Amino acid sequence: MGKGAASTDSPVAIICGGGTIPPAVVEAACRTGREVKVVGIKGEADPALEQYQPVELGWGQIGKLFDTLKRARCRDVVLIGSVTKRPDFRAVAGDLGTIRRLPRILSALKGGDDSLLVKVIGLFEEEGFSVVGAHEVAPQLLAASGLICGPEPLAENNADLSLAYEAVSAIGHLDVGQAAIAVGGRIVAIEGAEGTDAMISRCAELRRIRRIRDKPPSGVLVKRPKPGQDLRVDLPAIGPQTVEAAAEAGLAGIAIEAGRVLIAEKERTLSLAESKRIFIFGFDAVGADKATAHGG
Amino acid sequence: MGKGAASTDSPVAIICGGGTIPPAVVEAACRTGREVKVVGIKGEADPALEQYQPVELGWGQIGKLFDTLKRARCRDVVLIGSVTKRPDFRAVAGDLGTIRRLPRILSALKGGDDSLLVKVIGLFEEEGFSVVGAHEVAPQLLAASGLICGPEPLAENNADLSLAYEAVSAIGHLDVGQAAIAVGGRIVAIEGAEGTDAMISRCAELRRIRRIRDKPPSGVLVKRPKPGQDLRVDLPAIGPQTVEAAAEAGLAGIAIEAGRVLIAEKERTLSLAESKRIFIFGFDAVGADKATAHGG
Repeated sequence: MGKGAASTDSPVAIICGGGTIPPAVVEAACRTGREVKVVGIKGEADPALEQYQPVELGWGQIGKLFDTLKRARCRDVVLIGSVTKRPDFRAVAGDLGTIRRLPRILSALKGGDDSLLVKVIGLFEEEGFSVVGAHEVAPQLLAASGLICGPEPLAENNADLSLAYEAVSAIGHLDVGQAAIAVGGRIVAIEGAEGTDAMISRCAELRRIRRIRDKPPSGVLVKRPKPGQDLRVDLPAIGPQTVEAAAEAGLAGIAIEAGRVLIAEKERTLSLAESKRIFIFGFDAVGADKATAHGG
Repeated sequence: MGKGAASTDSPVAIICGGGTIPPAVVEAACRTGREVKVVGIKGEADPALEQYQPVELGWGQIGKLFDTLKRARCRDVVLIGSVTKRPDFRAVAGDLGTIRRLPRILSALKGGDDSLLVKVIGLFEEEGFSVVGAHEVAPQLLAASGLICGPEPLAENNADLSLAYEAVSAIGHLDVGQAAIAVGGRIVAIEGAEGTDAMISRCAELRRIRRIRDKPPSGVLVKRPKPGQDLRVDLPAIGPQTVEAAAEAGLAGIAIEAGRVLIAEKERTLSLAESKRIFIFGFDAVGADKATAHGG
């Protein structure tokens, strides 16, 4: 990850997929004083980005994308945001630059999410760019260590935190989810392809049908990167919708790895957590495995 | 598990919770020629059990249960079927035998499913009974080794089988689900407290919203006991509803561990799988970890 260490004298290009995280990263990056070139993926990028005068590019315009970045003298590139529609390049009329790269692009579109993005990074690097993580251009968005907001975790919350952490660690070597939930001393949900928010909603449903019987608030969501995960590829994040979902599911708190999970819309997320009485805790992963709400 | 090795000269008591598995086990046990005493849990047991003239007992009748079993000269006891309503013993008027055992029963009702059932087994053993597994009294219901029905698995199905198996193995040491699904070289779902069928339905939904893009039929459900799992406590099972859910989710097949997973309503399950063109494969777990559709 040191590979792309940002040289702050050149502008950074932030290529934005969907969701509210890209605008937060763009805003935070601008605040560091660095020049930022915003590229919005057509049909994905959030309208809030418009104040940054983004270049809007579709999936068929890979050639134009690289030309744009080169003309803007960008060396560092951040890829951030969700892509809800995995693009079918065969269905879009690509520019020449896209068509030339098509075999490599298509081969990148196979397999799990990680291998896809690792290959996309490869495409950028072959063009001479450095792909850097959002955490490198907007470090102020990362989770701090210790209690970030909300009530102090109870002993039972700590036990659930450890248990959910164990579940996340157990699947860490697999290209699958990065989150799990434990309630009342029992792992109740492990994230798969559905994503963190859908997994939390499942918990609310399990409570409704009384497959989870512990009285709310109880239970902890743990979210962290996979061990050895390339944060340029997939920086885990929480945001207001995570807190809303956790409140719906009657969880006591959210535990995220300090320094390695991004808090989107930080002010709104924290004040929402305060008002819902949900703690957000930044734990330190010690060695490969340790996690505790008291970890320092 | 050899502890309760059935002495076939005494009748076996089969205590039946909900679902279609208990009637299948009762029928198969009767076919072995052994005398069977059926106890139905009130509000849970399937009406199909009525032909076996069950004794119906509610949660407050633990004392009566033990008396009934002793009068029927049962030494071996099978506990089988789902309990959808975790009983609140404080709310039912218990008989004296229940009230006397209440502290132990209540302490059994805490924690994950396994620890609950392990404690329930302890309650029976303290009364002088041997708790045996359904697989011991109805071995003909267990999955055979190799292709059980449906089309031969393709190479891609084998790859998904191995991957889902890896996910199940990874969480094996945790008291959580026993099943996972991989589609197109990617783990898409890991079972938590929602149960296998709900997890398969989630896959159907992921396909509908195009978070899974591989064309159906594709993907394999793997279900097996946790490593070291006490099969008397929780014998994994599939049945017609598993096949129906797998068909809805567009899966290519279902892989279960040979000799350690029960097929409920076997004839109906297999003919349904044949008609839906879904394979059911019995894999052999070699050592702690190996699994392949070609395993011998």
